[in-house]
Amino acid sequence: MALDTGDTAFILICTAMVMLMTPGVGLFYGGMVRNKNVISMIAMSFIAFAIVTIQWVTAGYSLAFGSDISGFIGSLEHFGLNGVGMGGEGIPDILFMVFQLVFAGVTLAILTSGVAERIKLSSFIVLGVLWTTLVYDPLAHWAWGGGWASQLGALDFAGGTVVHISSGFGALALALVIGKRSGFGKFSMEAENISLTLIGGALLWFGWFAFNSGSALAANGLAANAFVVTNISAASGALTWMLASWAKGKPSSLGMVSGAVAGLVAITPACGFVGPMAAIAIGGIAGVLCYRMLLLRVKKGLDESLDAWAIHGMGGLWGALATGIFASASIGGVDGLIYGNVDRFLIQALDAGVAITYAFVVTYILAQVVDKTMGLRVTETEEYVGLDISQHGESTKG
Amino acid sequence: MALDTGDTAFILICTAMVMLMTPGVGLFYGGMVRNKNVISMIAMSFIAFAIVTIQWVTAGYSLAFGSDISGFIGSLEHFGLNGVGMGGEGIPDILFMVFQLVFAGVTLAILTSGVAERIKLSSFIVLGVLWTTLVYDPLAHWAWGGGWASQLGALDFAGGTVVHISSGFGALALALVIGKRSGFGKFSMEAENISLTLIGGALLWFGWFAFNSGSALAANGLAANAFVVTNISAASGALTWMLASWAKGKPSSLGMVSGAVAGLVAITPACGFVGPMAAIAIGGIAGVLCYRMLLLRVKKGLDESLDAWAIHGMGGLWGALATGIFASASIGGVDGLIYGNVDRFLIQALDAGVAITYAFVVTYILAQVVDKTMGLRVTETEEYVGLDISQHGESTKG
Amino acid sequence: MALDTGDTAFILICTAMVMLMTPGVGLFYGGMVRNKNVISMIAMSFIAFAIVTIQWVTAGYSLAFGSDISGFIGSLEHFGLNGVGMGGEGIPDILFMVFQLVFAGVTLAILTSGVAERIKLSSFIVLGVLWTTLVYDPLAHWAWGGGWASQLGALDFAGGTVVHISSGFGALALALVIGKRSGFGKFSMEAENISLTLIGGALLWFGWFAFNSGSALAANGLAANAFVVTNISAASGALTWMLASWAKGKPSSLGMVSGAVAGLVAITPACGFVGPMAAIAIGGIAGVLCYRMLLLRVKKGLDESLDAWAIHGMGGLWGALATGIFASASIGGVDGLIYGNVDRFLIQALDAGVAITYAFVVTYILAQVVDKTMGLRVTETEEYVGLDISQHGESTKG
Repeated sequence: MALDTGDTAFILICTAMVMLMTPGVGLFYGGMVRNKNVISMIAMSFIAFAIVTIQWVTAGYSLAFGSDISGFIGSLEHFGLNGVGMGGEGIPDILFMVFQLVFAGVTLAILTSGVAERIKLSSFIVLGVLWTTLVYDPLAHWAWGGGWASQLGALDFAGGTVVHISSGFGALALALVIGKRSGFGKFSMEAENISLTLIGGALLWFGWFAFNSGSALAANGLAANAFVVTNISAASGALTWMLASWAKGKPSSLGMVSGAVAGLVAITPACGFVGPMAAIAIGGIAGVLCYRMLLLRVKKGLDESLDAWAIHGMGGLWGALATGIFASASIGGVDGLIYGNVDRFLIQALDAGVAITYAFVVTYILAQVVDKTMGLRVTETEEYVGLDISQHGESTKG
Repeated sequence: MALDTGDTAFILICTAMVMLMTPGVGLFYGGMVRNKNVISMIAMSFIAFAIVTIQWVTAGYSLAFGSDISGFIGSLEHFGLNGVGMGGEGIPDILFMVFQLVFAGVTLAILTSGVAERIKLSSFIVLGVLWTTLVYDPLAHWAWGGGWASQLGALDFAGGTVVHISSGFGALALALVIGKRSGFGKFSMEAENISLTLIGGALLWFGWFAFNSGSALAANGLAANAFVVTNISAASGALTWMLASWAKGKPSSLGMVSGAVAGLVAITPACGFVGPMAAIAIGGIAGVLCYRMLLLRVKKGLDESLDAWAIHGMGGLWGALATGIFASASIGGVDGLIYGNVDRFLIQALDAGVAITYAFVVTYILAQVVDKTMGLRVTETEEYVGLDISQHGESTKG
Repeated sequence: MALDTGDTAFILICTAMVMLMTPGVGLFYGGMVRNKNVISMIAMSFIAFAIVTIQWVTAGYSLAFGSDISGFIGSLEHFGLNGVGMGGEGIPDILFMVFQLVFAGVTLAILTSGVAERIKLSSFIVLGVLWTTLVYDPLAHWAWGGGWASQLGALDFAGGTVVHISSGFGALALALVIGKRSGFGKFSMEAENISLTLIGGALLWFGWFAFNSGSALAANGLAANAFVVTNISAASGALTWMLASWAKGKPSSLGMVSGAVAGLVAITPACGFVGPMAAIAIGGIAGVLCYRMLLLRVKKGLDESLDAWAIHGMGGLWGALATGIFASASIGGVDGLIYGNVDRFLIQALDAGVAITYAFVVTYILAQVVDKTMGLRVTETEEYVGLDISQHGESTKG
């Protein structure tokens, strides 16, 4: 099979769109913090993308997609993109490589939720390199690079486990190690630039089409199905979160857009396996579930500040399970629990359980290592004046 | 004919780009209102998109594209996307479905112009479902689903009538029913966040390429022509509005970008039928015409607040007529008035006239029904504090 | 060879993405100026795009791509897009035309750096038409339209010379003619809306993928290589500028994103000729080099206000030379200096040198002509109140 210009065109553009999700996360988060930390949040997304780019083209891609070693990690055969060329089947090999790169980039940006408004920039950079290498790369290998999960038949079409469970539970571990923001629970820490969050949310929704349908790696009917269910799940999640929160007060735009993201997260592993009507359920349940997880997180006094755990972690868990529940052979060739396939569901649960455990534990250890060696957190004064001034020497009006 | 990967790639990406126009409208409008209503305007665009998504994949698509019933509406044969699959000719059927979905979404977002800064959120949601079902879906059926207008040979390449006339005249009807903003004509209601409007305008211009050239449903020369004339008309409209307003005072950036949108609206029905030099005229006239309509609207003391009527409604009317004037058989196989084809022009005028009447009257009735049952408008206090606080419990710096 | 739907799909979308870079430049620059000039900066990018659109479809395209006249300019055979149709080889001729149009548009937007916060709007429009016609069009002809540089074998894959050297050195000439901003060197002129700059930077990075990989004019392995090296160079530039500035103080987000742009500029001419590991070097050196050029510019008291010279001009020069150094026959069929090909390097240096001289001198003359006839600069009072109010009659919160 030679290159196909249609498939190549599709994945080239999808890669650009997924790249845009990384600053999209930065804007989404940047709008949620206090104005003194807006630049910090957005800048971290860019920096995350830059360091992952260099990590990926040197070692990361090979660790994820090199020949399998014991089901756990890839070999270094593709170190420095050795053997990754302009030819390929359907799409160029080097295009597959960069399509995977942009997934790794956005994942690290999501992780910043757990350390928002208090992490030291230098420590974030070191932690980012370590985390991508020791958490993201193995998880990508397990699901997509020939590792144990793919050998077992676990389904993760576009990264529910690899991207969202990893970053969501990773953010929770980070939040526990770095500790609460100064004044958390005492003073208001409400979002100050919601317009930015809504711009970021728009870019995320836009890019997610490429994230999910591009994971078909071809411009075909399966990609179209993934596109459609992605949109439905986002809409459904936006509406159910809005309605659930409306029952308790006013329906915030933050809740609405968070619900959309919850729906997008939950459909991510499922989008190549389920049809449109299942997507209404998957997104709808995600909206309510993630909203409740956020309330639980607040009630527990946990400062996983921008709710990557509630939305990406728990949304990703729900998506992994939902894939096992709603998968239909008519879409992706595999039936789920509702068609009587119990094993499918159990494999999904096992895969998610291992990923949660691995991501949480390894992130926790990495955070401790960085904290003990160089310190994760800025000083109290630096936190008080804000990271924009203290880390970047800048400030912005909004 | 089987699927074509190039065409499929093109429409997949176009669909994502048109989706981005919906928050694009939200930002465009959000920047034009007072700061206390920014969140409300942007959030309504997201909510519009979410409710249309669910409406469309249940009943809407079938009403628009199901088998024709009496030239007026489609049957419910595709209820719940029944029979809409991953196969197709050129592009997957389900992709055609979602490409049409994003048009319906952005249309409802444009409609919010007429009720800006004063509509009750719950009423907007109910009205939105009704309006899409009873106004948008029939109009889409008439033009593209085999209804009377298409039987008659009316031309609407990408939605001048379906999208812009419907929302523009719908917004006018809404404005009349809901009444003026408190203090309208007494106090300044100038745009407070023009940067947001310019960001929104950029996203609209960007997405409009997909809106218009994607309507070729294939990556071919016709799509390329549509792309080119879209850009020319936008540029021409931006320049003529700017110059026309410059003659009366300073050339505002709002005028410039409004002129671009006017040019984009006017070329929408025509883009598959006219060439580049006609596009200079179509956009240029649209810029001046819509500017004058805006002045007329202000002079009449009408609070169709963000000028969907002047720009989308009247721009759409001009575009429908211009299609009948400038159509060239060398582009789309049909000649217009300048080539001596009077019938072509009269059909366009008839189609636009019916659409205007239908959209205005039905919207007016729907608005009255919602107003009498649940009330369209917030209380005076809620309006005074702004919809961000009163409807969403939030506020933003900008 | 007939049209290819995959290639056509790719270039259609790429054209839209490159178009988005023009307001992207507006936002990038808009965030860097004082709040009283935000609208002016963004609006100029739109206006630049609009006037270039009309210029290009009338005369500009023909001047650049018409039959060669003495190696210097194209004939007017394509005046009014005469003979530019919907057919073509691989992609439609009219699509090639508009893909080139969007390059011309963004180039003029970059030029606004040199006159930020002090140019008269009417003079900018006149200057813009003249500059595009007398600087951009010849340079495009030289490199891509059959002019002397292409005859000589100079390499400029996506516009390092045509776009970046021209606008960067043009901006320097403009800055010298128009003079410093009032109070320059005495009062702080720090960026006031860095969020806007970061949004603009995100759109630039996104659009640059299309700018560079689209320049392959086909969805193939070469496009994929261009995409990959573009991303690597951007990341590398972001990191080295950040680190270089960190050594002297706090690492600003403006520096990080400027470094990304520097990396993007430098890889632009090279992206079809070099591989991934060379891109790390090209971007990394660009980040440090452009940072130092910025410091030099500040030290010399030059008010080339937003550093188009340091980043686009000097980054473009470095990119032209780097292409001659790192070109590898395995990528684009041509070897550079590191493979012993000295001539290749000398041709690149000659091409860049002529382009620098031409762009600087002609821009200087044009600026003088406009200044003597209609005045380039606003009055001191207009500058004091800001261009938003004085030129557009508007103001914005941020």
